[in-house]
Amino acid sequence: MQRTKKGLIIVLSGPSGVGKGEVCKALLRRNPGLKLSVSATTRAPRPGEVDGVSYFFKSGDEFKRMIANNEFLEYSAVYGCNYYGTPGAYVDQECEAGHDILLEIDVHGANQVKKACPSAIAVFLAPPSMSALKSRLMNRGTEDAEAVERRFSEALLELQQAKLYDYLVINDVLDKAVNAVEHIIYAERMRAERWYNFVDELQGGSKKL
Amino acid sequence: MQRTKKGLIIVLSGPSGVGKGEVCKALLRRNPGLKLSVSATTRAPRPGEVDGVSYFFKSGDEFKRMIANNEFLEYSAVYGCNYYGTPGAYVDQECEAGHDILLEIDVHGANQVKKACPSAIAVFLAPPSMSALKSRLMNRGTEDAEAVERRFSEALLELQQAKLYDYLVINDVLDKAVNAVEHIIYAERMRAERWYNFVDELQGGSKKL
Repeated sequence: MQRTKKGLIIVLSGPSGVGKGEVCKALLRRNPGLKLSVSATTRAPRPGEVDGVSYFFKSGDEFKRMIANNEFLEYSAVYGCNYYGTPGAYVDQECEAGHDILLEIDVHGANQVKKACPSAIAVFLAPPSMSALKSRLMNRGTEDAEAVERRFSEALLELQQAKLYDYLVINDVLDKAVNAVEHIIYAERMRAERWYNFVDELQGGSKKL
Repeated sequence: MQRTKKGLIIVLSGPSGVGKGEVCKALLRRNPGLKLSVSATTRAPRPGEVDGVSYFFKSGDEFKRMIANNEFLEYSAVYGCNYYGTPGAYVDQECEAGHDILLEIDVHGANQVKKACPSAIAVFLAPPSMSALKSRLMNRGTEDAEAVERRFSEALLELQQAKLYDYLVINDVLDKAVNAVEHIIYAERMRAERWYNFVDELQGGSKKL
């Protein structure tokens, strides 16, 4: 007798600079059963990138057709030029095959996924303090002071969205944050609704005793 | 900045013979921060029992007045003679003081608690199989064959209630079951709604930067 074998959809999100990427990488390294979702994009493949592994590479027309057909759990246009999105069919297929799927997406995308797929487990990664977030944004060294200020203002707005999530994890010490998400995944596997089949089997099985 | 300090209410329930008592004892031993709820009862104190520690000892009239005033999260008459119940005020007080409270109750009582207090975390402890449950009921050696059969039939009905719970944990190996409940408690502490104050503080704090 087994639990329902369907995989979980785990959405890891939070303001920029909070360290989503680091937490995701560590989660994937520590949990070989967990799969990072593959996004669709309209940007051209770079050398070494494999279609269906790195991304699902789509033409602009294909992508727009997929949008029109409601085929994305979430999508966005990044920097006004290329589209990125999470194909629902791909995520469903992986879940049905029993794989837990990890989505690392921004706050706007996470809201879209939660609406399209309420059973997705939405984890908001929060900074321990706003000054810590500001330091991180500055220490990335990839943006000028103005861009840091803009991202910081965005982060403040994104924080408000935390209340739409299922869980909040503070990313202060990386290992602790990863550990917290692992506990959430472990606990979510025990959600009663995932065990309805098992309960039915228990009751059915008793007739043979 | 801190999470909301309110404690959790954890209801551990399941059919008789499933091993609720063992799991609770192990949980309390391993988690000194966890407190077992104190029940009210109309039965007389036994030597060494302390009012407010072992039980809240109440007269029949007091207990009935408390029922009439809706003061119990759940109550029942055991074997038709004595009343037992969980006083809501006591549980509230402990939670407000930041203590996580563990309630070990039968399936009927658990349903009552969940209705009175939807934020309580209801964990259904299930046997790995019905034959395992039957063996446990027989091996307790405290009841004759007829009583075992009666409890087994009750257990089958109680199983159906599992679908009303938040989580299902299989009690096959004691340590694993305890570990599972610990993961649930850990994850539940990260529920987003417990962090609203923290989010507000983060946003408020940013004004000072």
